[in-house]
Amino acid sequence: MVNAIIPDIVVGRLPLYLRTLQLMLAEGRQVTSSQELGERLGISAAQIRKDLSQFGEFGKQGTGYNIEFLTDQLRMILKVDRIWDVVVVGAGDVGHAISRYQGFSDRGFKVAMVFDNDPQKIGKEVGGFIVHDIKDLISLVEEAGIRIAMLAVPASHAQEVTDKLVKGGVRAILNYAPINLQVPKNITVQYIDPVVHLQRMSFYLE
Amino acid sequence: MVNAIIPDIVVGRLPLYLRTLQLMLAEGRQVTSSQELGERLGISAAQIRKDLSQFGEFGKQGTGYNIEFLTDQLRMILKVDRIWDVVVVGAGDVGHAISRYQGFSDRGFKVAMVFDNDPQKIGKEVGGFIVHDIKDLISLVEEAGIRIAMLAVPASHAQEVTDKLVKGGVRAILNYAPINLQVPKNITVQYIDPVVHLQRMSFYLE
Repeated sequence: MVNAIIPDIVVGRLPLYLRTLQLMLAEGRQVTSSQELGERLGISAAQIRKDLSQFGEFGKQGTGYNIEFLTDQLRMILKVDRIWDVVVVGAGDVGHAISRYQGFSDRGFKVAMVFDNDPQKIGKEVGGFIVHDIKDLISLVEEAGIRIAMLAVPASHAQEVTDKLVKGGVRAILNYAPINLQVPKNITVQYIDPVVHLQRMSFYLE
Repeated sequence: MVNAIIPDIVVGRLPLYLRTLQLMLAEGRQVTSSQELGERLGISAAQIRKDLSQFGEFGKQGTGYNIEFLTDQLRMILKVDRIWDVVVVGAGDVGHAISRYQGFSDRGFKVAMVFDNDPQKIGKEVGGFIVHDIKDLISLVEEAGIRIAMLAVPASHAQEVTDKLVKGGVRAILNYAPINLQVPKNITVQYIDPVVHLQRMSFYLE
Protein backbone atom coordinates (compact mmCIF):
# COMPACT_ATOMS: atom_id res chain seq x y z
CA MET A 1 0.00 0.00 0.00
CA VAL A 2 1.34 3.37 -1.08
CA ASN A 3 -0.46 5.14 1.78
CA ALA A 4 1.31 3.14 4.41
CA ILE A 5 4.79 4.10 3.34
CA ILE A 6 4.61 7.70 2.11
CA PRO A 7 5.23 10.15 4.97
CA ASP A 8 2.33 12.54 5.46
CA ILE A 9 4.70 15.49 5.15
CA VAL A 10 5.44 14.38 1.58
CA VAL A 11 1.72 13.99 0.86
CA GLY A 12 1.29 17.53 2.19
CA ARG A 13 3.66 18.95 -0.43
CA LEU A 14 2.02 17.28 -3.41
CA PRO A 15 -0.93 19.74 -3.52
CA LEU A 16 1.59 22.60 -3.70
CA TYR A 17 3.35 20.94 -6.64
CA LEU A 18 0.01 20.36 -8.33
CA ARG A 19 -1.14 23.94 -7.75
CA THR A 20 2.04 25.35 -9.22
CA LEU A 21 1.93 23.00 -12.22
CA GLN A 22 -1.67 23.98 -12.90
CA LEU A 23 -0.69 27.66 -12.84
CA MET A 24 2.12 26.90 -15.28
CA LEU A 25 -0.35 25.12 -17.56
CA ALA A 26 -2.60 28.18 -17.40
CA GLU A 27 0.43 30.24 -18.42
CA GLY A 28 0.73 28.03 -21.50
CA ARG A 29 3.89 26.29 -20.34
CA GLN A 30 4.73 22.71 -21.37
CA VAL A 31 7.92 21.68 -19.58
CA THR A 32 9.40 22.51 -16.18
CA SER A 33 12.20 21.37 -13.90
CA SER A 34 12.58 20.59 -10.23
CA GLN A 35 14.76 23.73 -10.07
CA GLU A 36 12.01 25.98 -11.37
CA LEU A 37 9.33 24.37 -9.24
CA GLY A 38 11.62 24.75 -6.25
CA GLU A 39 12.20 28.44 -6.88
CA ARG A 40 8.49 29.12 -7.17
CA LEU A 41 7.76 27.20 -4.00
CA GLY A 42 10.76 27.90 -1.81
CA ILE A 43 11.50 24.17 -1.63
CA SER A 44 14.80 22.63 -2.71
CA ALA A 45 14.96 20.95 -6.12
CA ALA A 46 16.42 17.84 -4.48
CA GLN A 47 13.46 17.62 -2.11
CA ILE A 48 11.00 17.87 -4.99
CA ARG A 49 12.80 15.15 -6.98
CA LYS A 50 12.89 12.93 -3.91
CA ASP A 51 9.19 13.48 -3.14
CA LEU A 52 8.10 12.73 -6.71
CA SER A 53 10.38 9.70 -7.04
CA GLN A 54 8.36 8.01 -4.29
CA PHE A 55 5.48 7.72 -6.74
CA GLY A 56 7.26 6.86 -9.96
CA GLU A 57 9.53 8.13 -12.70
CA PHE A 58 7.97 11.38 -13.92
CA GLY A 59 10.84 13.25 -15.54
CA LYS A 60 13.97 12.58 -17.54
CA GLN A 61 17.43 13.77 -16.54
CA GLY A 62 18.14 16.88 -18.56
CA THR A 63 14.71 17.26 -20.17
CA GLY A 64 12.66 18.00 -17.06
CA TYR A 65 9.00 17.28 -16.43
CA ASN A 66 6.17 17.39 -18.95
CA ILE A 67 3.76 19.64 -17.06
CA GLU A 68 0.54 18.15 -18.38
CA PHE A 69 1.66 14.58 -17.71
CA LEU A 70 2.90 15.36 -14.20
CA THR A 71 -0.32 17.28 -13.46
CA ASP A 72 -2.40 14.28 -14.49
CA GLN A 73 -0.26 11.94 -12.41
CA LEU A 74 -0.52 14.12 -9.32
CA ARG A 75 -4.28 14.45 -9.78
CA MET A 76 -4.52 10.65 -9.80
CA ILE A 77 -2.23 10.24 -6.81
CA LEU A 78 -4.18 12.82 -4.78
CA LYS A 79 -7.46 11.31 -6.07
CA VAL A 80 -8.63 14.64 -7.47
CA ASP A 81 -9.00 13.24 -10.97
CA ARG A 82 -12.67 13.19 -9.90
CA ILE A 83 -14.97 15.65 -8.06
CA TRP A 84 -15.65 15.01 -4.37
CA ASP A 85 -18.87 16.29 -2.83
CA VAL A 86 -18.22 18.27 0.33
CA VAL A 87 -20.61 19.16 3.15
CA VAL A 88 -20.26 22.56 4.83
CA VAL A 89 -21.44 22.86 8.42
CA GLY A 90 -21.98 26.41 9.66
CA ALA A 91 -23.66 29.07 7.53
CA GLY A 92 -22.02 32.10 9.15
CA ASP A 93 -19.50 34.39 7.46
CA VAL A 94 -16.90 31.66 6.96
CA GLY A 95 -19.43 29.06 5.79
CA HIS A 96 -20.84 31.63 3.41
CA ALA A 97 -17.42 32.42 1.94
CA ILE A 98 -16.65 28.70 1.58
CA SER A 99 -19.97 27.96 -0.11
CA ARG A 100 -19.40 30.68 -2.67
CA TYR A 101 -15.68 29.97 -3.24
CA GLN A 102 -15.03 29.48 -6.94
CA GLY A 103 -11.69 27.73 -6.55
CA PHE A 104 -12.87 24.24 -5.58
CA SER A 105 -14.33 22.63 -8.68
CA ASP A 106 -11.32 22.65 -10.98
CA ARG A 107 -9.24 21.20 -8.15
CA GLY A 108 -11.38 18.21 -7.22
CA PHE A 109 -14.13 19.38 -4.87
CA LYS A 110 -17.67 20.72 -4.92
CA VAL A 111 -19.81 21.98 -2.07
CA ALA A 112 -22.93 19.80 -2.09
CA MET A 113 -24.81 20.75 1.10
CA VAL A 114 -24.77 23.41 3.80
CA PHE A 115 -26.05 22.92 7.37
CA ASP A 116 -26.70 25.17 10.35
CA ASN A 117 -28.58 24.97 13.66
CA ASP A 118 -29.96 28.52 13.53
CA PRO A 119 -33.72 28.58 12.83
CA GLN A 120 -33.17 32.01 11.19
CA LYS A 121 -30.92 30.38 8.59
CA ILE A 122 -32.50 26.95 8.06
CA GLY A 123 -34.48 26.86 4.82
CA LYS A 124 -32.93 30.16 3.67
CA GLU A 125 -30.31 30.52 0.95
CA VAL A 126 -26.65 30.96 1.82
CA GLY A 127 -24.04 31.09 -0.92
CA GLY A 128 -26.43 29.52 -3.40
CA PHE A 129 -27.46 26.64 -1.11
CA ILE A 130 -30.62 26.13 0.90
CA VAL A 131 -29.43 25.67 4.48
CA HIS A 132 -30.39 22.32 5.98
CA ASP A 133 -31.24 21.72 9.62
CA ILE A 134 -28.29 20.24 11.46
CA LYS A 135 -30.73 17.71 12.94
CA ASP A 136 -30.74 16.03 9.52
CA LEU A 137 -26.94 16.07 9.20
CA ILE A 138 -26.23 12.40 9.87
CA SER A 139 -29.00 11.02 7.67
CA LEU A 140 -28.50 13.37 4.71
CA VAL A 141 -24.72 12.98 4.67
CA GLU A 142 -25.03 9.21 4.95
CA GLU A 143 -27.64 9.04 2.21
CA ALA A 144 -25.50 11.14 -0.14
CA GLY A 145 -22.38 9.12 0.70
CA ILE A 146 -20.37 12.28 1.45
CA ARG A 147 -16.87 11.64 2.75
CA ILE A 148 -15.51 15.19 3.20
CA ALA A 149 -16.68 18.04 5.43
CA MET A 150 -15.69 21.62 6.08
CA LEU A 151 -16.51 22.70 9.59
CA ALA A 152 -17.22 26.39 10.17
CA VAL A 153 -19.09 26.38 13.46
CA PRO A 154 -18.09 28.03 16.76
CA ALA A 155 -15.38 26.19 18.71
CA SER A 156 -17.93 25.31 21.38
CA HIS A 157 -19.96 23.22 18.89
CA ALA A 158 -17.12 21.78 16.81
CA GLN A 159 -16.60 18.48 18.65
CA GLU A 160 -20.31 17.67 18.82
CA VAL A 161 -20.73 18.32 15.08
CA THR A 162 -17.60 16.30 14.35
CA ASP A 163 -19.05 13.29 16.15
CA LYS A 164 -22.17 13.57 13.96
CA LEU A 165 -20.14 13.89 10.78
CA VAL A 166 -18.19 10.76 11.64
CA LYS A 167 -21.44 8.93 12.37
CA GLY A 168 -22.71 10.00 8.94
CA GLY A 169 -19.69 8.47 7.24
CA VAL A 170 -17.44 11.50 6.77
CA ARG A 171 -13.76 10.51 6.72
CA ALA A 172 -11.98 13.83 6.17
CA ILE A 173 -12.69 17.09 8.00
CA LEU A 174 -11.29 20.52 7.28
CA ASN A 175 -11.87 22.36 10.54
CA TYR A 176 -12.11 26.16 10.60
CA ALA A 177 -13.09 26.25 14.28
CA PRO A 178 -10.15 27.22 16.52
CA ILE A 179 -10.07 23.99 18.50
CA ASN A 180 -8.47 20.58 18.14
CA LEU A 181 -10.86 17.74 17.42
CA GLN A 182 -10.85 14.22 18.82
CA VAL A 183 -11.56 11.69 16.08
CA PRO A 184 -11.17 7.93 15.50
CA LYS A 185 -7.91 6.84 13.88
CA ASN A 186 -9.39 6.33 10.42
CA ILE A 187 -10.54 9.98 10.18
CA THR A 188 -8.22 12.70 8.82
CA VAL A 189 -8.48 16.25 10.12
CA GLN A 190 -6.84 19.38 8.76
CA TYR A 191 -7.04 22.78 10.40
CA ILE A 192 -7.42 26.33 9.17
CA ASP A 193 -7.02 28.94 11.89
CA PRO A 194 -5.75 32.30 10.61
CA VAL A 195 -4.62 33.32 14.09
CA VAL A 196 -2.28 30.34 14.33
CA HIS A 197 -0.60 31.56 11.14
CA LEU A 198 -0.54 35.17 12.30
CA GLN A 199 1.04 34.24 15.63
CA ARG A 200 3.66 32.13 13.88
CA MET A 201 4.63 35.31 12.02
CA SER A 202 4.33 37.85 14.86
CA PHE A 203 7.02 35.84 16.66
CA TYR A 204 9.49 37.16 14.07
CA LEU A 205 8.36 40.81 14.14
CA GLU A 206 10.37 43.46 15.97
CA MET B 1 18.96 35.95 19.67
CA VAL B 2 16.19 33.52 20.38
CA ASN B 3 14.79 33.85 16.82
CA ALA B 4 18.04 32.70 15.28
CA ILE B 5 18.14 29.37 17.07
CA ILE B 6 14.53 28.21 17.44
CA PRO B 7 13.45 26.06 14.47
CA ASP B 8 10.41 27.50 12.69
CA ILE B 9 8.59 24.19 13.11
CA VAL B 10 8.78 24.69 16.89
CA VAL B 11 7.55 28.28 16.53
CA GLY B 12 4.67 26.90 14.49
CA ARG B 13 3.51 24.67 17.35
CA LEU B 14 3.49 27.41 19.99
CA PRO B 15 0.22 28.99 18.75
CA LEU B 16 -1.43 25.57 19.11
CA TYR B 17 -0.22 25.27 22.70
CA LEU B 18 -1.42 28.82 23.41
CA ARG B 19 -4.82 28.19 21.83
CA THR B 20 -5.34 25.04 23.88
CA LEU B 21 -4.20 26.71 27.11
CA GLN B 22 -6.60 29.61 26.50
CA LEU B 23 -9.45 27.14 26.01
CA MET B 24 -8.47 25.45 29.27
CA LEU B 25 -8.49 28.82 31.03
CA ALA B 26 -11.95 29.47 29.62
CA GLU B 27 -12.99 26.10 31.07
CA GLY B 28 -11.83 27.38 34.48
CA ARG B 29 -8.80 25.11 34.65
CA GLN B 30 -5.64 26.11 36.55
CA VAL B 31 -3.04 23.39 36.03
CA THR B 32 -2.23 21.08 33.13
CA SER B 33 0.48 18.67 32.04
CA SER B 34 2.39 17.99 28.87
CA GLN B 35 0.47 14.68 28.75
CA GLU B 36 -2.91 16.39 28.73
CA LEU B 37 -1.82 19.05 26.23
CA GLY B 38 -0.44 16.29 24.05
CA GLU B 39 -3.67 14.30 24.11
CA ARG B 40 -5.73 17.34 23.16
CA LEU B 41 -3.34 18.21 20.33
CA GLY B 42 -2.21 14.84 19.03
CA ILE B 43 1.41 15.75 19.81
CA SER B 44 3.64 13.69 22.09
CA ALA B 45 4.18 14.95 25.64
CA ALA B 46 7.94 14.68 25.14
CA GLN B 47 7.74 16.94 22.09
CA ILE B 48 5.79 19.55 24.01
CA ARG B 49 8.24 19.51 26.93
CA LYS B 50 11.16 19.80 24.51
CA ASP B 51 9.56 22.66 22.60
CA LEU B 52 8.75 24.64 25.74
CA SER B 53 12.15 23.99 27.31
CA GLN B 54 13.73 25.97 24.47
CA PHE B 55 12.18 29.10 25.97
CA GLY B 56 12.64 28.52 29.69
CA GLU B 57 11.54 26.48 32.67
CA PHE B 58 7.75 26.69 32.74
CA GLY B 59 6.65 23.66 34.73
CA LYS B 60 7.77 21.58 37.67
CA GLN B 61 8.26 17.83 37.53
CA GLY B 62 5.20 16.26 39.07
CA THR B 63 3.13 19.42 39.46
CA GLY B 64 2.69 20.32 35.78
CA TYR B 65 2.16 23.74 34.23
CA ASN B 66 0.29 26.66 35.74
CA ILE B 67 -1.99 27.46 32.82
CA GLU B 68 -2.27 31.21 33.40
CA PHE B 69 1.48 31.61 33.79
CA LEU B 70 2.31 29.52 30.71
CA THR B 71 -0.36 31.39 28.71
CA ASP B 72 1.22 34.72 29.63
CA GLN B 73 4.69 33.45 28.78
CA LEU B 74 3.60 32.15 25.37
CA ARG B 75 1.79 35.42 24.63
CA MET B 76 5.03 37.27 25.31
CA ILE B 77 7.14 34.85 23.27
CA LEU B 78 4.76 35.08 20.29
CA LYS B 79 4.49 38.86 20.82
CA VAL B 80 0.72 38.72 21.15
CA ASP B 81 0.78 40.32 24.59
CA ARG B 82 -0.20 43.38 22.51
CA ILE B 83 -2.66 44.01 19.63
CA TRP B 84 -1.26 44.18 16.10
CA ASP B 85 -3.09 46.18 13.47
CA VAL B 86 -3.68 44.15 10.31
CA VAL B 87 -4.51 45.34 6.80
CA VAL B 88 -6.89 43.25 4.68
CA VAL B 89 -6.51 43.48 0.90
CA GLY B 90 -9.48 42.20 -1.08
CA ALA B 91 -13.07 42.93 -0.10
CA GLY B 92 -14.65 39.88 -1.72
CA ASP B 93 -16.25 36.99 0.19
CA VAL B 94 -13.05 35.96 1.94
CA GLY B 95 -12.02 39.54 2.78
CA HIS B 96 -15.52 40.13 4.11
CA ALA B 97 -15.38 37.05 6.33
CA ILE B 98 -11.92 38.03 7.62
CA SER B 99 -13.00 41.60 8.35
CA ARG B 100 -15.94 40.41 10.42
CA TYR B 101 -14.13 37.55 12.15
CA GLN B 102 -14.54 37.89 15.91
CA GLY B 103 -11.67 35.64 16.86
CA PHE B 104 -8.72 37.98 16.29
CA SER B 105 -8.76 40.55 19.06
CA ASP B 106 -8.35 38.34 22.10
CA ARG B 107 -5.48 36.59 20.34
CA GLY B 108 -3.34 39.58 19.41
CA PHE B 109 -4.70 41.05 16.17
CA LYS B 110 -7.20 43.62 14.93
CA VAL B 111 -8.25 44.42 11.38
CA ALA B 112 -7.48 48.11 10.89
CA MET B 113 -8.07 48.76 7.16
CA VAL B 114 -9.61 47.06 4.13
CA PHE B 115 -8.58 47.72 0.51
CA ASP B 116 -9.91 46.75 -2.90
CA ASN B 117 -9.45 47.87 -6.50
CA ASP B 118 -13.12 47.58 -7.46
CA PRO B 119 -14.76 51.01 -7.93
CA GLN B 120 -18.05 49.36 -6.89
CA LYS B 121 -16.57 48.57 -3.50
CA ILE B 122 -14.29 51.54 -2.80
CA GLY B 123 -15.91 53.95 -0.36
CA LYS B 124 -18.57 51.38 0.57
CA GLU B 125 -18.74 49.44 3.82
CA VAL B 126 -17.54 45.85 4.01
CA GLY B 127 -17.49 44.00 7.32
CA GLY B 128 -17.70 47.28 9.24
CA PHE B 129 -14.88 48.99 7.32
CA ILE B 130 -15.00 51.62 4.61
CA VAL B 131 -13.09 50.06 1.71
CA HIS B 132 -10.04 52.07 0.67
CA ASP B 133 -8.75 52.38 -2.89
CA ILE B 134 -5.80 50.07 -3.46
CA LYS B 135 -4.05 53.03 -5.07
CA ASP B 136 -3.58 54.41 -1.57
CA LEU B 137 -2.31 51.10 -0.15
CA ILE B 138 1.39 51.94 0.14
CA SER B 139 0.94 55.39 1.63
CA LEU B 140 -1.83 54.50 4.12
CA VAL B 141 -0.11 51.33 5.34
CA GLU B 142 3.18 53.19 5.70
CA GLU B 143 1.56 56.09 7.54
CA ALA B 144 -0.18 53.73 9.97
CA GLY B 145 2.98 51.69 10.48
CA ILE B 146 1.16 48.43 9.78
CA ARG B 147 3.38 45.33 9.72
CA ILE B 148 0.89 42.54 9.02
CA ALA B 149 -1.39 41.93 6.03
CA MET B 150 -4.00 39.39 5.04
CA LEU B 151 -4.23 38.95 1.31
CA ALA B 152 -7.58 37.89 -0.15
CA VAL B 153 -7.28 38.92 -3.80
CA PRO B 154 -7.40 36.69 -6.90
CA ALA B 155 -4.19 34.72 -7.58
CA SER B 156 -3.56 36.85 -10.66
CA HIS B 157 -3.19 40.01 -8.51
CA ALA B 158 -1.49 38.53 -5.47
CA GLN B 159 2.16 39.12 -6.39
CA GLU B 160 1.56 42.71 -7.50
CA VAL B 161 -0.27 43.53 -4.24
CA THR B 162 2.43 41.78 -2.26
CA ASP B 163 5.10 44.02 -3.78
CA LYS B 164 3.06 47.05 -2.72
CA LEU B 165 2.58 45.74 0.81
CA VAL B 166 6.31 45.20 1.17
CA LYS B 167 6.95 48.71 -0.12
CA GLY B 168 4.54 50.04 2.49
CA GLY B 169 6.48 48.34 5.29
CA VAL B 170 4.49 45.15 5.81
CA ARG B 171 6.69 42.34 7.15
CA ALA B 172 4.24 39.45 7.54
CA ILE B 173 1.67 38.31 4.99
CA LEU B 174 -1.07 35.74 5.42
CA ASN B 175 -1.93 34.83 1.85
CA TYR B 176 -5.37 33.40 1.00
CA ALA B 177 -4.71 33.52 -2.76
CA PRO B 178 -3.84 30.08 -4.18
CA ILE B 179 -0.37 31.02 -5.38
CA ASN B 180 3.12 31.14 -3.92
CA LEU B 181 4.54 34.62 -3.41
CA GLN B 182 8.07 35.84 -4.05
CA VAL B 183 9.23 38.09 -1.20
CA PRO B 184 12.50 39.47 0.17
CA LYS B 185 14.19 37.37 2.86
CA ASN B 186 13.07 39.58 5.76
CA ILE B 187 9.37 39.05 4.96
CA THR B 188 7.41 36.12 6.39
CA VAL B 189 4.57 34.57 4.42
CA GLN B 190 2.02 32.03 5.57
CA TYR B 191 -0.58 30.43 3.34
CA ILE B 192 -4.21 29.46 3.69
CA ASP B 193 -5.57 27.46 0.76
CA PRO B 194 -8.42 25.15 1.71
CA VAL B 195 -7.89 23.03 -1.41
CA VAL B 196 -4.32 22.21 -0.38
CA HIS B 197 -5.74 20.82 2.87
CA LEU B 198 -8.57 18.98 1.11
CA GLN B 199 -6.17 17.35 -1.36
CA ARG B 200 -3.89 16.29 1.46
CA MET B 201 -6.88 14.41 2.87
CA SER B 202 -8.39 13.05 -0.35
CA PHE B 203 -5.10 11.19 -0.84
CA TYR B 204 -6.12 8.96 2.07
CA LEU B 205 -9.72 8.36 0.96
CA GLU B 206 -10.79 5.10 -0.65
